[in-house]
Formats: sequence, structure tokens, C-alpha cells
Amino acid sequence: MKALVYHGPNQKAWEEAPDPTIQEATDAIFQIDTTTICGSDLHILKGDVPETTPGTVIGHEGVGTIVEVGAGVKNLKVGDRRVISCMTSCGVCEYCRKGLTSKCQACSFGDSWQLGHRINGTQAQYVRVPLVETSTFAIPEGVSDAEAVMCSDIFSTGFEIGVLYGDVQPGKTVICIGAGPVGLAAMKTAGLFSPTAVVAIDMDENRLAVAKAQFGATHAVNNSKDGWMDQVFDIVGKDGADVVMEAVGVPPSLEACFELVKPGGHVANIGVHGKPVSLPVEKLWTRNITITTGLVNMTTGPMMLDLIGAGKLDVKPMGTHEFKLDQFMDAYEVFGAAAKNSALKMVITK
Amino acid sequence: MKALVYHGPNQKAWEEAPDPTIQEATDAIFQIDTTTICGSDLHILKGDVPETTPGTVIGHEGVGTIVEVGAGVKNLKVGDRRVISCMTSCGVCEYCRKGLTSKCQACSFGDSWQLGHRINGTQAQYVRVPLVETSTFAIPEGVSDAEAVMCSDIFSTGFEIGVLYGDVQPGKTVICIGAGPVGLAAMKTAGLFSPTAVVAIDMDENRLAVAKAQFGATHAVNNSKDGWMDQVFDIVGKDGADVVMEAVGVPPSLEACFELVKPGGHVANIGVHGKPVSLPVEKLWTRNITITTGLVNMTTGPMMLDLIGAGKLDVKPMGTHEFKLDQFMDAYEVFGAAAKNSALKMVITK
Repeated sequence: MKALVYHGPNQKAWEEAPDPTIQEATDAIFQIDTTTICGSDLHILKGDVPETTPGTVIGHEGVGTIVEVGAGVKNLKVGDRRVISCMTSCGVCEYCRKGLTSKCQACSFGDSWQLGHRINGTQAQYVRVPLVETSTFAIPEGVSDAEAVMCSDIFSTGFEIGVLYGDVQPGKTVICIGAGPVGLAAMKTAGLFSPTAVVAIDMDENRLAVAKAQFGATHAVNNSKDGWMDQVFDIVGKDGADVVMEAVGVPPSLEACFELVKPGGHVANIGVHGKPVSLPVEKLWTRNITITTGLVNMTTGPMMLDLIGAGKLDVKPMGTHEFKLDQFMDAYEVFGAAAKNSALKMVITK
Repeated sequence: MKALVYHGPNQKAWEEAPDPTIQEATDAIFQIDTTTICGSDLHILKGDVPETTPGTVIGHEGVGTIVEVGAGVKNLKVGDRRVISCMTSCGVCEYCRKGLTSKCQACSFGDSWQLGHRINGTQAQYVRVPLVETSTFAIPEGVSDAEAVMCSDIFSTGFEIGVLYGDVQPGKTVICIGAGPVGLAAMKTAGLFSPTAVVAIDMDENRLAVAKAQFGATHAVNNSKDGWMDQVFDIVGKDGADVVMEAVGVPPSLEACFELVKPGGHVANIGVHGKPVSLPVEKLWTRNITITTGLVNMTTGPMMLDLIGAGKLDVKPMGTHEFKLDQFMDAYEVFGAAAKNSALKMVITK
């Protein structure tokens, strides 16, 4: 088969790779129908993710059709069309039974992001999916591949880690720092709870415009400009916002959240961070705030698909560019220069 | 009257002070029957709390009898015996109606810790209590003054900010770093939810012994000794504890909480902090943890009194020393050298 193979920092190729085979009775092999690229794939390609070894096929999002199942797979069969979850989980360990599938103890390396990270992933013609019954989702009728692939990771990440952990509720004010794909998914799904304001904050004017036009932001503030925090307080009130979500992953951005949150409010970190931040607990200890962090559990994946099927969640604007699998290197070019190309997610089909 | 007056850093006296008078229609004047000393009073006396000006009568805990009410007080009368809350709150502003009385907007200085901080307090023969109907609690029959005074602040602080914010639940494992009065109150009230383990952590062996003997700790670990964290993991399991409460207020202690918390768990900061801490978000972003901070709202004050009245909460071991009001300087001597004197709370009566 052909696959996108990581060959060490800044080296990758769409090239011939061994066909995946069943290794455990609970595996299935999928033909990939549609896949996409995530920001964390760029981190791997830069060499920032040491546990991903050269030779790994990357990618952890995809829609596929089962072409082979292991002997222990009881409820799925060849020909089934499924969303492949970015999280591989067993459903039976202590953490899975609590809904914390991102900490599944069946995953031999201690975390559930396996595909395209610890084992070969979905940017390929075929992929082996372990623990397939609990690591893939059925696709409701009427939901296209281009929509379904947005439910492998990104919309649930924004919703579970931003909106649910941040406790977005009707009538609350919401800020999201970062209007990249995950931030936009968080803003869009915050709208499911009818907050009074959703303030998009980013340094890129195009992303801010997109946030307002297509992802439910009610206001947009450019945080590259002086006085941007005052602008935010003018919108949400001088005490700050009820919910502040971080979807960038750099210290100044998370530290700004601690200034923008209202007493009694929530700071929900979605960003992937590489460094510690300063927590101003000398101010916060009197402010009754809640700070959350997390890796998506994908427990809301099926619900996201149902919302799309019911016409209650429009994820189509997230897919800005289309490619075929054999154009994968071009897709990376476009995604790697996302701002220049007004790119969100690449929709890459067989 | 006589009162304990702050005269600037390291200067205080039990001396003659003006009798309090009604200033607003919603005030009442109390004769103090029982009061006590809090760690934050020591901070004021050291000069660490600049908003408390010399000349202020300190103290924010007390049980008293009403001797005069303002014209707007409808439901209380002269002779009523009440617990005076450490938080002064109106009950009608946005924050009070959400239960965040510690942020009451009626308090002209923007926070609800008024008594003995912004205005004259309870370490006196008499005190003016503003907004008296919403800032004091009735005392159920059978609850003594020495018990009731523990419901002005400390037991609700441990319970609301440690136990409730930390989401202690039946079957969870709980750690409390710091076995001073507030930490002990948090451990004791954690027991109301039947956790499987309550691990007391402190550098003082006497406090650890007290935590186990009288405040519901199931295990005790001395964190002045090498390898103490391994000892804790041996008790709660290698993944850490479901709930880690901080009741010290120094960076190493809160930073240890971030290492001891289990994926999916809670860190509840109760401590009063003077400096920022380092938040290792580069590790925590994948661990799905919740961090909370807060100043007590005292919404559980009446419930604590009911629990004591019903024999479900024994707060008596918290009162380790008894004094009369005119021995206030001696009480400070004992409390100021708490470790040497095995002192928790002073019970100071008229």
C-alpha cells in the first residue's frame, strides 16, 4: 500500500509501505476512504514528539471501510463504514469504565493516542485499528465522509475539553483564545449551549472573520493589537468571562486566560503545551476559579455524528481544501502554511 | 469597650476602643460571647495585609448575642444568639444570588471579608455586623459556643474549598497537604462523603498524630522526610489520588499536588498564597485534571451547625486552648507558637 511515512525530523514521504495485517483478535483492517491532517502531525514531523519513531505511518483521523476483522470481533463485519477515533481504548479497564478512555490501561504505552503516534496511523490506504469495537463509531445515514472525518478528533476535542470541562451553559459568556481548527470547533460547539457571547481571539484577521462568519463567534478581538484585553472586558463585562478556553498552547495565551476569567468562572485548557506556565495563585486563591486540562476521550464522538445527521451541527466549513491520497505531499504544503492559504482542515479522499 | 487593636506591623494591644454603633439600617451590634484567632490574623499582625490599616480591631470569627438592631432588620431581634460569618454579604447582588457570597458586590471594597480586615472585627467585647440578616447564622439547640465558633470560617472553608471543590465522593482517595486547623477541617469534613483513604501530609509529627486520632485521616506521611512521595503512592496507588487538597499556601506544596493527583482527579487549593507557582501544563494537558481555588462563601455554615447539632460532626477537638477575653494577649502567644504548644484553635470567651 501507499502511506505517509515519517522518516525523522523534517523528513516524510508518500511512499510504498507494508500492508497492515491482523495482529490481535480484536483488530480490524480498514481501507481509508477519507482522512485529514492535524496540528499534532506537524509536531511529529518537526521531531517534537520523540516517542514517534522514524518509519511510523502518521495520522489519527479517518473514515474507512472494514476489509478484514480479527477472530474476536463480534459486532462489526467486512464492509462496515466507520469513523476511526483518534483514541484507542478497550472499554473495560478502570479508566474506560469511568469515561476516561484517553487513559485506557490496555494501551501498552500508557496513553490512548496510539494511531500515527505509537503505531502506524490513518494517512495511508489501509490501517490496522486495534480494539476496533470500542475505538470506532458508526456513521448515521446522511452524514458524508467529509463531515464524519471531523468526528475522529477535532470537534470532540473542542467540545469535551473546551465546552464541557469549561462548563459552558445558557447565558454564560465565553472567550476562546486561538481560532485555529480546534478553537473554532470549541466555539462552534459552545453554541450548542446558547451562551450570550462567544468572543474569538486570534492574531490572524482571516481566522477571526471565519470564526464570526461560520463558527458562531459573536465578537472577534485581535490580540496582536495594544489594548486588546480592554476590548474583551468591554464585551464580556469588567469582571471577565464565565468561561475562557485556551486553544493555542503557549504560556502567554494561558496566562491571559487567568486575567480574563470572571470570579467563579472556568479556564479550560485545550492547547498542547511544551512548557510550564506561571499560575498567579496569589491572585486566584480568592477568585474561586476552576482550571481544567485534558486529552479528548471521544465519548462524545457518536453524539457529534448524530448532531450532524440531525442538521444541528454544521461541520462542513472546517474542510477548506480537498485532495486525493496521492496528493498527500501537496496537502501538507497547504496545511503547513495554513494562515497564507486560509486553511483549516484538509479533506483527503481515496 | 475592650478590643484587640492592630497598631502596625508586630504591634497589637488588648485595650480600650470606641463602642461600635449602628451605621446602616441593616446593621446589628453583637456582644461577643466567644471568639477565636485565625492564621490570617497573624498575617495582618505581621503587616502582610496592607489593606488592614493600623487602628483596626481584628478578628472575623465569633458567636455573639444581639444587643441592638438597625431599623431595617426585620427577622432578628435583641437577645438572638448567632454565629457571625467571616463573610459579609447582601444576599441580593449577582454574586450572592449565585452562592458566590465571597464576591458580594455590596461590600464597598469588592470582597466580602470585611470584619477584622476592612472594618473592625470580632476580637472585642462588641462588634458591628453589617448586612446582619445574611451575614450571621442561627445556632441549633444543643450546639455550644465553643462548637458554633468553629462555623464562622474554618469548617466551611475546609469543606467548601477543599471537599466540595475537590469533588470528594464515596470511594475516592484523598490527600491533604497541611494538617493545620484548615487542613484538619478539610480532612474531617471529607469524611462526610466516605472516601476510602484520607492521607494527611505535614512536617509536624504531632499534627499528623492529631489528624489520625481526631480528624479522620486514615494515613499520615511526614513530608520533611526523603521518599515521602513514594510513601504516598504506596497508599493511594501508583497513579496518584483522586483528590489532592492544599492547605499550606507555599509553592512547593501546591506543586507537589500536581504530581500526586491521579489522571481525571482534582487539585483543590485552600491555602493562602503570596507568590505564583509553576503550573506544569506541559505534563498536565494530557492528564484531564481540575484545579480549583477559592475563598469560602459560607453557604454551608448553617448546614455545618446542623451536622454538629445532629451529632454527625465532632468539631470539639479543634478547640485546644481556652481563654477569657482579657487574656487575649496570652492567647496570641500560644497560637503564635502553635507547633510548640500543640495548638489548633483558641476558644476565647467573655
